[in-house]
Amino acid sequence: MKKIVTLGEIMLRLSTHVGERLSQADQLSMHYGGAEANVGVSLSQFGFDVYFVSKVPNNALGKAVERHLLSNGVHIDYLVKGGERLGTYYLETGIGERSAAVTYDRKFSSFSHLTVEELDLEAILSEAEVFHMSGITLALSPNLRELALLAMKKAKELGVKTSFDFNYRASLWSQEEASLAIKPLLPYTDICFCGDLDAIYLLGIQQADDVLSKTEKLTYYYHEIQKRYPNIQFMSSTFRTVLSASDNKLQGNHYTGGTLYQSKEHHISQIVDRVGGGDAFASGVLYGIVEQLPPGQLISFATAASALKHTVHGDANAFSAEEVLKFAGTSAGEIVR
Amino acid sequence: MKKIVTLGEIMLRLSTHVGERLSQADQLSMHYGGAEANVGVSLSQFGFDVYFVSKVPNNALGKAVERHLLSNGVHIDYLVKGGERLGTYYLETGIGERSAAVTYDRKFSSFSHLTVEELDLEAILSEAEVFHMSGITLALSPNLRELALLAMKKAKELGVKTSFDFNYRASLWSQEEASLAIKPLLPYTDICFCGDLDAIYLLGIQQADDVLSKTEKLTYYYHEIQKRYPNIQFMSSTFRTVLSASDNKLQGNHYTGGTLYQSKEHHISQIVDRVGGGDAFASGVLYGIVEQLPPGQLISFATAASALKHTVHGDANAFSAEEVLKFAGTSAGEIVR
Amino acid sequence: MKKIVTLGEIMLRLSTHVGERLSQADQLSMHYGGAEANVGVSLSQFGFDVYFVSKVPNNALGKAVERHLLSNGVHIDYLVKGGERLGTYYLETGIGERSAAVTYDRKFSSFSHLTVEELDLEAILSEAEVFHMSGITLALSPNLRELALLAMKKAKELGVKTSFDFNYRASLWSQEEASLAIKPLLPYTDICFCGDLDAIYLLGIQQADDVLSKTEKLTYYYHEIQKRYPNIQFMSSTFRTVLSASDNKLQGNHYTGGTLYQSKEHHISQIVDRVGGGDAFASGVLYGIVEQLPPGQLISFATAASALKHTVHGDANAFSAEEVLKFAGTSAGEIVR
Amino acid sequence: MKKIVTLGEIMLRLSTHVGERLSQADQLSMHYGGAEANVGVSLSQFGFDVYFVSKVPNNALGKAVERHLLSNGVHIDYLVKGGERLGTYYLETGIGERSAAVTYDRKFSSFSHLTVEELDLEAILSEAEVFHMSGITLALSPNLRELALLAMKKAKELGVKTSFDFNYRASLWSQEEASLAIKPLLPYTDICFCGDLDAIYLLGIQQADDVLSKTEKLTYYYHEIQKRYPNIQFMSSTFRTVLSASDNKLQGNHYTGGTLYQSKEHHISQIVDRVGGGDAFASGVLYGIVEQLPPGQLISFATAASALKHTVHGDANAFSAEEVLKFAGTSAGEIVR
Amino acid sequence: MKKIVTLGEIMLRLSTHVGERLSQADQLSMHYGGAEANVGVSLSQFGFDVYFVSKVPNNALGKAVERHLLSNGVHIDYLVKGGERLGTYYLETGIGERSAAVTYDRKFSSFSHLTVEELDLEAILSEAEVFHMSGITLALSPNLRELALLAMKKAKELGVKTSFDFNYRASLWSQEEASLAIKPLLPYTDICFCGDLDAIYLLGIQQADDVLSKTEKLTYYYHEIQKRYPNIQFMSSTFRTVLSASDNKLQGNHYTGGTLYQSKEHHISQIVDRVGGGDAFASGVLYGIVEQLPPGQLISFATAASALKHTVHGDANAFSAEEVLKFAGTSAGEIVR
Amino acid sequence: MKKIVTLGEIMLRLSTHVGERLSQADQLSMHYGGAEANVGVSLSQFGFDVYFVSKVPNNALGKAVERHLLSNGVHIDYLVKGGERLGTYYLETGIGERSAAVTYDRKFSSFSHLTVEELDLEAILSEAEVFHMSGITLALSPNLRELALLAMKKAKELGVKTSFDFNYRASLWSQEEASLAIKPLLPYTDICFCGDLDAIYLLGIQQADDVLSKTEKLTYYYHEIQKRYPNIQFMSSTFRTVLSASDNKLQGNHYTGGTLYQSKEHHISQIVDRVGGGDAFASGVLYGIVEQLPPGQLISFATAASALKHTVHGDANAFSAEEVLKFAGTSAGEIVR
Repeated sequence: MKKIVTLGEIMLRLSTHVGERLSQADQLSMHYGGAEANVGVSLSQFGFDVYFVSKVPNNALGKAVERHLLSNGVHIDYLVKGGERLGTYYLETGIGERSAAVTYDRKFSSFSHLTVEELDLEAILSEAEVFHMSGITLALSPNLRELALLAMKKAKELGVKTSFDFNYRASLWSQEEASLAIKPLLPYTDICFCGDLDAIYLLGIQQADDVLSKTEKLTYYYHEIQKRYPNIQFMSSTFRTVLSASDNKLQGNHYTGGTLYQSKEHHISQIVDRVGGGDAFASGVLYGIVEQLPPGQLISFATAASALKHTVHGDANAFSAEEVLKFAGTSAGEIVR
Repeated sequence: MKKIVTLGEIMLRLSTHVGERLSQADQLSMHYGGAEANVGVSLSQFGFDVYFVSKVPNNALGKAVERHLLSNGVHIDYLVKGGERLGTYYLETGIGERSAAVTYDRKFSSFSHLTVEELDLEAILSEAEVFHMSGITLALSPNLRELALLAMKKAKELGVKTSFDFNYRASLWSQEEASLAIKPLLPYTDICFCGDLDAIYLLGIQQADDVLSKTEKLTYYYHEIQKRYPNIQFMSSTFRTVLSASDNKLQGNHYTGGTLYQSKEHHISQIVDRVGGGDAFASGVLYGIVEQLPPGQLISFATAASALKHTVHGDANAFSAEEVLKFAGTSAGEIVR
Repeated sequence: MKKIVTLGEIMLRLSTHVGERLSQADQLSMHYGGAEANVGVSLSQFGFDVYFVSKVPNNALGKAVERHLLSNGVHIDYLVKGGERLGTYYLETGIGERSAAVTYDRKFSSFSHLTVEELDLEAILSEAEVFHMSGITLALSPNLRELALLAMKKAKELGVKTSFDFNYRASLWSQEEASLAIKPLLPYTDICFCGDLDAIYLLGIQQADDVLSKTEKLTYYYHEIQKRYPNIQFMSSTFRTVLSASDNKLQGNHYTGGTLYQSKEHHISQIVDRVGGGDAFASGVLYGIVEQLPPGQLISFATAASALKHTVHGDANAFSAEEVLKFAGTSAGEIVR
Repeated sequence: MKKIVTLGEIMLRLSTHVGERLSQADQLSMHYGGAEANVGVSLSQFGFDVYFVSKVPNNALGKAVERHLLSNGVHIDYLVKGGERLGTYYLETGIGERSAAVTYDRKFSSFSHLTVEELDLEAILSEAEVFHMSGITLALSPNLRELALLAMKKAKELGVKTSFDFNYRASLWSQEEASLAIKPLLPYTDICFCGDLDAIYLLGIQQADDVLSKTEKLTYYYHEIQKRYPNIQFMSSTFRTVLSASDNKLQGNHYTGGTLYQSKEHHISQIVDRVGGGDAFASGVLYGIVEQLPPGQLISFATAASALKHTVHGDANAFSAEEVLKFAGTSAGEIVR
Repeated sequence: MKKIVTLGEIMLRLSTHVGERLSQADQLSMHYGGAEANVGVSLSQFGFDVYFVSKVPNNALGKAVERHLLSNGVHIDYLVKGGERLGTYYLETGIGERSAAVTYDRKFSSFSHLTVEELDLEAILSEAEVFHMSGITLALSPNLRELALLAMKKAKELGVKTSFDFNYRASLWSQEEASLAIKPLLPYTDICFCGDLDAIYLLGIQQADDVLSKTEKLTYYYHEIQKRYPNIQFMSSTFRTVLSASDNKLQGNHYTGGTLYQSKEHHISQIVDRVGGGDAFASGVLYGIVEQLPPGQLISFATAASALKHTVHGDANAFSAEEVLKFAGTSAGEIVR
Repeated sequence: MKKIVTLGEIMLRLSTHVGERLSQADQLSMHYGGAEANVGVSLSQFGFDVYFVSKVPNNALGKAVERHLLSNGVHIDYLVKGGERLGTYYLETGIGERSAAVTYDRKFSSFSHLTVEELDLEAILSEAEVFHMSGITLALSPNLRELALLAMKKAKELGVKTSFDFNYRASLWSQEEASLAIKPLLPYTDICFCGDLDAIYLLGIQQADDVLSKTEKLTYYYHEIQKRYPNIQFMSSTFRTVLSASDNKLQGNHYTGGTLYQSKEHHISQIVDRVGGGDAFASGVLYGIVEQLPPGQLISFATAASALKHTVHGDANAFSAEEVLKFAGTSAGEIVR
């Protein structure tokens, strides 16, 4: 099995049941997830040998994180134990016109205090196919920014493909801060998940001409990014049309070799859980790159993986590569007897 | 904080879970509500000092009503304790093409036996901004009809704005009975919630010309009502298009100064709980009147409040004025992180 | 009350909650059902005196089957007790684009070992109005094929109307096997549930001209079937358009006296449970035939019965004939107070 | 199968979950039961042909009562439909030192308005082995007192064994009222369920000497009752020691032919649901009488049936005669594999 | 109504269901509580006008705290909004031999940053009967220690009775730290909750002679404390014998006027939720002092209140004074119909 | 980490909620377990590198078994996929006097068809510390009996300690069959779990003198067994006193070097789930043997592990060695804050 490494924060998500406000709830559902952990879990479901690198407290919640990862076949050899607390957030589930609302309680987390000294990057990254991380990690602390840069460089040095997802969150930092932190990593990035807003606000690329279509604009942005960072071989993102909190349209984009490939547009109605939809997409793209799928098949697979994620509770994709392939190729909604 | 008084019945609602028939159910969800109680709860969420006037039995269910009101910040100083029982109804929740079905068990309730002697209307209404009640109260007993008329007169006497919601329920009384009971109150009414069917069948106004649009017809009816009752300064109602039990369209109407103002049409899909949607609307209108919102803003706020109500379990709006304003102004369905 | 007899397997269905994968579930919902049991339950709700003939193990699950049937008023006089086990299947509930998935565990069931000797067909069928069974029974064992043929012949001999639902399941047998087993029964069949694929692949009828509409094609197939089996007086089926696992369109077809009658197309959104939708339809058709409804009313009733089934959990229709009639005639989705 | 008839009220019980107060609850469990209905259900589980005579409203709750009875194999031929409402009560489940608390909402029930004219007593009682009713029915209305007396007389006339359970409830009537209503029935009673308090306070028998043991006292009371009503062939009751709401001791007493027979004392810990424990005992006694068990076996069976009832949710015994016999004869608590 | 003021931290408690480990749980129950908040809620149930002083974040969880307090009739006028987060802890519920286990996540809480400047102690305490706080507050931050001392002094100055509960928690601070922080408050304390371990380890009183009984020892410690702090008029504590996590014995002690009064020993089996048992006891003592119950009655009431608390979920007593009185005087476990 | 291998069947357990009969249930809880799988899970929690050898179907339930094992850190390298079905059983949970009842549906399982050819015993067992299996496996099929003998021999050949648990189940086979199958394995057994009944009925040892105590008798039987099989170094069992289904006493016995060591007697009240209690005990014994604990400590640890198991849902111990040690050494039932 091929080795994959992802590094990032994993948090406890506490969600209300549909139709309940957090301020009135008396029961919460628990899930564990984070951008890079979710990518790791999906890739493990797809058949890779995944190692997730992070730090969690040495208590029952840290143990719960271990169980979550193990049950999905993810290796926890590099899950450091220690620090104060597990990052936590409360999700008031949205429905129909009403958006989901997040109440964050993630400060002072064990992961935010993780330092380079606690990890043996050489051992972690050696013989890996892909190393994946996201911009969220950079937002959490200066030591993590330092760690991230070292990890990306070490990965390149060891011949590991590097993958970086911008994952910009306005609640965590300003565009200026993000721009300063992200740019140094891009020269070491092979695979990049970013969209038009990232191009404009974080990379300072001039806005595309308004007469262009959404697809043409994205192609323009990807061209511009590649001019600046010719080392980036793959760029991907999705177009999401939010009809309501329960009803979205989703189309995947994948840019490689100067060409943009697009999936069909999925109509995702009756959304069960949208959290992790983007991570499922990223996992699908990484699967396609490692398995060397043709770009058209790759983006079809990745978007299908993301669409499937929306139909299950929890942050991470719970489908095998075979299931995603079958789903990508069939019409939806029949009982399979 | 401004004082608001609402008077009416509050009942125990026992609802089946989605997809279960009442005759087969083995679990029921409990909610407490009633038209005027719901208006009171919403207005308390909006920041007013609300007093709810009613009568409930002196047992654990009466205590539960108290807790429900208190948890929403509603004052229970004028909640009389006594009588036989709490009015109850069973709701078989509808979904898709299948409508919800109500099994009433509300006869012989404590509230239906409430008399004028049990209340000190002078104290209750003094210094209030608004007094609100609905036609349901009139339908329940002769003593309540007497109480209602006295309360409306006392409110006018004390300079309190009076609000009356027709709320006609065919299961409670005939149109003739309703017409006889409602008309005496209208000369004392400042704010009125009624629609086209009320105008025709309860007030005897001639049907509008069929070539008119729905909006034009409503404007005509409101003109005609105002001719008869020039004291009524505000009239409001909603246009609800029922696509299915789970999928409605809702537009708000507000008539004042001879002009009809309309909100945008909300598309309320994946309805969680429709009960109390009208009361949430009424609360929004009353908020707008007390806070002197311009009529266009008022009706946008009120309709948004009603749309939000459909996304939560329970009879009453659980959103602050700030949350309603934000919802009214944003596109729906994104995760707010 | 009129006597109806249905014969077939009844199984335990274990379903995941919405949004859960079977491989991750820790709770399952239990329902009991099977094509002919479901038809029996519906017809009992419609007011007939229904006898269900089957075999279940003599343990707590067999007892549970008895309770399920009794609670719906179905007679269990001919429910044989014995054998190894109750046929079981696991349903991973579908939603949105993701189809439901069935994991079967039905082999070695008590019913599959039922033999002619265990039943007194004369007593079972005497004075019945209708005897109903389906192709699933034929697929389960040679002894059941023998039993089925004897039962159909005995029914005809006793003047009982016979009803046969093709109910072809590719997971149980090949088209060739099915064709061989079904054809001998058709000369004894009065009422037949089958569609275009059955006509082509099981009865070997030449495919209709592609320029024909869906409705014209079905008419053609029913004509052809009636040429071969002039004894068949009624043929029925539905057109189901699967927009998603949660959102279907459904139209009923009923052919009698050389004419095809069609219901309106129901839009079934927010599907609660699709299992048994076809059986509810069959029950509606049989109700109409026994009650001698005009064909147009019959197919409207039957399709409404099927649409209603989709709004409740469990395999069987839980609605009375009056409720179906009312539903068939009203617009959907209002609260009935 | 032997025919048994029971007559009485059946109510909806709405129970809180353990550890919740009714005033704070948001979910309730539903059960249907009543003294005579519970006896009917138990006797049906024991293999008799049971007819339950009562009146319930013609709505979804009335339908639910039907389903409850049918699922337990009880015949509903004499279940009259009509009237205002189903008697209801709320049970705040007790635990440990805290007793359960009942909030009644049973007034104005359909059953309380049942009249002689609505029943064909001749048909109902003919060919029955046993007719059973309780003092609760007498407490509910004058018409029911009249009906009860006629039914008892008719039963005797038809050679049916009559069974009467005092079942005195202080919340329903005074001892004087009960005494006046019950005495006229006793000359027509063959089997009687009553205890020492009934003897003293309802039948006016002089209190036993304090030096006597509990058992000797009961023997004395039964002697005295039999002197007054020599027609009574069997008298039964239980000694219940309440260690806590979750932990009781229970011993059964059965008096016949001048001798008192006693069961062993069951230690019922971890009580799941005590409601209906007395009815399960009465059912066991009636089973023993009809099946002509020796008195020692009879009282062992009846007390075991009652003990088993405490281990399941719901008002009625859910165990077959075989299961009760096995339980009566084994030590408790092993896993039966 | 008499005014009571309590000051302290209120936290979110997230509990596993019985029989689940936190590391394996996927659902948690939510409760809000803290020593002084619990005392406030109980006293509000007992009929006092309670003000709870604290600080919670200005988010949905802060709103939830408000709703919790309001539903119990507690005033939130002095509940400051702001700061980083709500103190949180996870409770793995114990059962039988296995103890409950707490995972704390309470650092950096809004309350721990509360300062004197944010409160108007004069307004808060004026006209109060009692001011109550506990040692937990002292453990949380230096600013809270300062605030506590000022509040106690201000209370004395305004003629308010002061109440202090040692509530020592080894997980929060050392005995040395606690001793240093607590001693300065005692000269301003009228009512004190402390036990033998507090006397020895926090106040440095010499250990009692081992030949003394448990009760004699406690009397000795209370004598010694009173010698040092003659201003303390009342001292109380409980003797708890832990038979298992589900089964405790509890006896209350109350010392006043040089005499120790004791309640009967309650046997609390089938414990539902032990959290807050001590706070319920303290509430009962304060109720008795304010209502001037004789000491024997007082300690019987307080211990009964604590025993009742163990039978309900949640941190706070949910019983009225009448219910506690009735419970204190009856044998346990009967159904109250 | 030390390698441990266990081989056996793992089944799906479907359990009713407490107080529900299987025949009336509509929800079931899912757990996966089997004697040897449970031992494997426990030993993995204790820190060993555990491999579980078995065969499960290649479907969603097989996948669920994998997730169960992985989440507990058990390796699935030797979990063969294929065959018809997963062995299943239904557990009607017992409480108080009522025993749990099992409805088996385990015939035709994938595991029962496992053959020697599907496993590479050499690879599986090499470098293992312990190989553990039980008599259940022998009962399932001749091929498994063959496999078991080969595995035991291979283990001995490779220097692996062998462990055999008699685990006799009367529902699976007769004592004669068991005796014939078990005896050939004993010459290859180092560690043996068996009790007095096994000695008498399966090994034909003469019954001990009745004047001996329970402990003396067991010592006698272990002496006799060791005479016949001097290779057996360790024998263990428990004395379980069943007070009720919810309340047991448990004492552990461990025989080595001619001496019997006993743990204290645990009083296990409020039992959550007894299934797997014996396997937890066996795991504790194996832990002690591998870690070379003194026999007294070993039996204390093993019995504590078993007692803890009774407090959690699911078949397997969910506690680390540290948690078991702490539990073994503390009094029970305090909240650990």
